[in-house]
Amino acid sequence: MHRSLTKISDLSLKDIDEIMKLGREYINGKKSNILKQKIIINLFFESSTRTLSSFEIAAKDLGANVITIPVDSSSVSKGETIVDTVRTLNAMKPDFMIVRHRCSGIMATMAKSTKCSIINAGDGSYEHPTQALADYLVIKHFKSKIEGLKVAICGDVLHSRVARSNIRLLSRLGAKISIIGPLTLIYSNFPEVKSLHHSLKEGIKDIDVLMLLRVQKERMKEGAFIPSEQEYFHLYGLDEEKLSYAKQDMIIMHPGPVNRGKEISYQLANSNKVILKQVEFGLAIRKAVLHYFAAQDS
Amino acid sequence: MHRSLTKISDLSLKDIDEIMKLGREYINGKKSNILKQKIIINLFFESSTRTLSSFEIAAKDLGANVITIPVDSSSVSKGETIVDTVRTLNAMKPDFMIVRHRCSGIMATMAKSTKCSIINAGDGSYEHPTQALADYLVIKHFKSKIEGLKVAICGDVLHSRVARSNIRLLSRLGAKISIIGPLTLIYSNFPEVKSLHHSLKEGIKDIDVLMLLRVQKERMKEGAFIPSEQEYFHLYGLDEEKLSYAKQDMIIMHPGPVNRGKEISYQLANSNKVILKQVEFGLAIRKAVLHYFAAQDS
Amino acid sequence: MHRSLTKISDLSLKDIDEIMKLGREYINGKKSNILKQKIIINLFFESSTRTLSSFEIAAKDLGANVITIPVDSSSVSKGETIVDTVRTLNAMKPDFMIVRHRCSGIMATMAKSTKCSIINAGDGSYEHPTQALADYLVIKHFKSKIEGLKVAICGDVLHSRVARSNIRLLSRLGAKISIIGPLTLIYSNFPEVKSLHHSLKEGIKDIDVLMLLRVQKERMKEGAFIPSEQEYFHLYGLDEEKLSYAKQDMIIMHPGPVNRGKEISYQLANSNKVILKQVEFGLAIRKAVLHYFAAQDS
Repeated sequence: MHRSLTKISDLSLKDIDEIMKLGREYINGKKSNILKQKIIINLFFESSTRTLSSFEIAAKDLGANVITIPVDSSSVSKGETIVDTVRTLNAMKPDFMIVRHRCSGIMATMAKSTKCSIINAGDGSYEHPTQALADYLVIKHFKSKIEGLKVAICGDVLHSRVARSNIRLLSRLGAKISIIGPLTLIYSNFPEVKSLHHSLKEGIKDIDVLMLLRVQKERMKEGAFIPSEQEYFHLYGLDEEKLSYAKQDMIIMHPGPVNRGKEISYQLANSNKVILKQVEFGLAIRKAVLHYFAAQDS
Repeated sequence: MHRSLTKISDLSLKDIDEIMKLGREYINGKKSNILKQKIIINLFFESSTRTLSSFEIAAKDLGANVITIPVDSSSVSKGETIVDTVRTLNAMKPDFMIVRHRCSGIMATMAKSTKCSIINAGDGSYEHPTQALADYLVIKHFKSKIEGLKVAICGDVLHSRVARSNIRLLSRLGAKISIIGPLTLIYSNFPEVKSLHHSLKEGIKDIDVLMLLRVQKERMKEGAFIPSEQEYFHLYGLDEEKLSYAKQDMIIMHPGPVNRGKEISYQLANSNKVILKQVEFGLAIRKAVLHYFAAQDS
Repeated sequence: MHRSLTKISDLSLKDIDEIMKLGREYINGKKSNILKQKIIINLFFESSTRTLSSFEIAAKDLGANVITIPVDSSSVSKGETIVDTVRTLNAMKPDFMIVRHRCSGIMATMAKSTKCSIINAGDGSYEHPTQALADYLVIKHFKSKIEGLKVAICGDVLHSRVARSNIRLLSRLGAKISIIGPLTLIYSNFPEVKSLHHSLKEGIKDIDVLMLLRVQKERMKEGAFIPSEQEYFHLYGLDEEKLSYAKQDMIIMHPGPVNRGKEISYQLANSNKVILKQVEFGLAIRKAVLHYFAAQDS
C-alpha cells in the first residue's frame, strides 16, 4: 500500500521538512529520473490549467509516463460511480493518481479504494495540499521563517480549498492566521483562526503575508448573498490606497487565476513578483512531493 | 503495408495463440521497449476512459511516443471526411492508429486508406477485438480451457460490439454461446449462437461464464421499445436470487462501465473479482497486440 | 531571451535557408534528440487536428516532454486574461510555447510577456508561418525553384492566415502572387499581390502553383455577403473543366482540411498527390523550426 496525500494532516512535520528540502533542491535545478517507468494518471473532473500543467510537467520531468484523462470523456457519463472509475484505473496498476474533483472530502474514499498513491489536486472546497506546501515554500523564501508570522487570508474563504489547506499547514507551523471577508463568504469554526475582519483596510494592519483569493462563483448556490463586484472591490480588493495601511515588507500572494480589477488592481497585479513565484515554486513542490512518495515506496 | 486489427477474423488461430502467450508474459511483469521511436496516434471519435487509458498506458510502457487526439478538436467539424482525416494523419507516418468511431464497420475502409496499422478500439455496434482477446485471457485464467465451455451473454447484445467480438472469438475456440435478453435487444442471425433465453433465471442454468452487458441507450433510436429499468433488473439484472440457480463455479464478467443496480446488484458488484481482472488483463493484451504487430513489422 | 516565430518577417533569408535545409534532412529520415529534457507547451485556444498533431509528433520525435493544454480547461473561463495565462505558464519555465489563438496579431504581445520561444500555430486571420514554410518546401520539391514562379491563391483570402503568411514569404522569395476570389472575400491592400481575378477559370491561366483555401465561416461576422455554396463552386471550385484552362504541370495545393465538393471536386481531391505532401512536409518543417531555434539557444 502506497502513501497518499489527501490532506495536509496526512503529513508529519518531518514529512513537511523533507518535502521542503527537496523543493528547494528542485528550485536550484536538481534533475532526477526517479519516476522512470512509473505510470502517473491525471484524473481531473474539474478543469484546470495551472495545477494540471504543473503536475504534468513535474511528472514528465522526473521521467514518468503520464496519462491525462480529459474531464468529458469520463465513464461517469455512462453511469459508472466515481469509486468504480478509480478502482478501474487502479486495476491498470499506476503508481500515482493525481485527482481533482468537485466533492469535498472524496479523496479519502478514493485512497481506500486503490493501491496506488492518490495525490489531491483539489477537492471541492476542502483541501489543495500541494498549493499550501508551495505557498509555505514561497513564504520561507521571502520571510525566512514562519513562526510568529501574521498571515491574513482575504476574500472567499468559505469556498476556498487553498485557504483551508493553508490555515491548517501554516497555523501548525506557528503562523498567526486572520481572515478578512464578507460575513457570507467566511466561517468562524476554525480554532486556528485568531481574528476576523470585514474590511481589508482594517485587517491589513501589521500583516506580514496577505493571501488574496478568487471569488468562486461556480461553487456558490443560486441566491447566495454576496456583495456586488464594485462593493467587493471597494471593501476587499487590494489597491494603492488600502496598501498604504500595510507594513512596508508585507508580501501579496494569490493562488491564481487572478481576476484583475476584482481582487487586486491592474497596477498592483503588474508590479507583483510573488504570485508568479507561487507558480514556479508550485512546480518544484510537485516534483518534491512525487519524489518523496516514490522514494519511500521503493 | 502493416497488418491491421479491425475485427477478430483478421487473426489466425496462430496469431491468437501468440498474442495470448505475450499477454501472459506481460501479466507476469515482462518489460519491453519494442515501441521505442514508434509513433502511436489515438484517434477516439467516441469518448472513452478505460479503453483509451489502457491503450495509452500500454503504448507508453512499451516506449512509444503517443499522440492522443481529442474528440472535439477534430477537423470533422470543419467539413473534412473521416477518411480524409485518417489519410492526413497517415501522412505524418505514424506506426499505429488506435481508432474508436461510432460507425459500425468503418475500420476496414480506414485500413485501406492508410499504410500504418489500424487497431480497432470499438466501432459502433460492430467489433471491439482487443476486449474479446482480454476476455478470452480472463476465461483461460479462471477456467484453464475454453473448449466445451458454456458462455452466456446477457443484456443489450444488439448494440454491443463486445458481444459480437466475443461471440466470434469464443465460438471459434470451441465455446458454446447462448444469449439472454429481451427480444428487442438481441438478434438471432448468428449461426454461432446455440440458444436464446428471455430471462436470466432460466438462461443462467449450467453456465460456466456469464457476461453481463451495459444497456447502451446512446446507440438506440428514439422510440425503441426497451424494458423499463425496474423491469430490466427484474428479468436480466444479476442478484443473489438469480445467482442461486447458477453453478457454484460460474464466473461473472462485465466489460464495464458497470451500472450498479441495473445490470448487477451493488453487493455482487462489490464482491466480484473478475471484472477488475478484465481491466488488468485488458492492459496486458493491448501491450501484447501492439508488441505482436510491431515485431512482425520489423 | 529565446527567439520567437510570431510571423514570417521574424525570419531572415538566412534563417529560412537553414530551416529549409533542416526540413529536407528530416524528410530524408534524420533522427535527433535535440529537445531531450526540454519542455514544450501546446496552448491551443482554437481546435486543431493537423497542426496540433504535427507539432506534438515533431516535438516528441525530437525527445521533448510535451504538455498539451486543452482548449476548454483554460483558466480564461475563470476570468484570467490571456496574457496572465501565458505569464503563468512561462513561470513553469518551458522552452517553447506553441500557441494558436483566434486574435489576429496577439503573438507579439505574448512573446514580450515570456522568456520562452513562442511559435505561432495560427492567430486569427493574421499568420501561420510554419504552414507557409511547409508550403515553400513543397513548391521547391515539385518545381525546384521559386524565383519567377506564378502562384495563385484562390478563395477566402480575407480570413486566411495561411494566405497572408504565404503571400509574405513567397513574394519575398521572388514568386509572383495573384489572388482569385469573390470581392467580399479578398483584399487589395497587399503591395505584394500583382493581380486579382473574380473567377477561377480566368485566373488559372499560366499559373504554376494554385493554392485553394477553405471558406472559413467560423471567422465571418453574421450577415457577411458571401456566395452560396453552389455559386462558390461554380466560380471558384476546382473541377476538370476549369483545370483544362491550366498549364499541364500546375500543382494544386490546399492547407486542409479539404471540403470536397466545395473548393475542389471529389475526383480531383482523390487524384491529388500534393496536399498530403503538405502534411508530410509540415511535420518535417516543424521539426526543423524547433531544431533550429533550440540549437541557436544552446
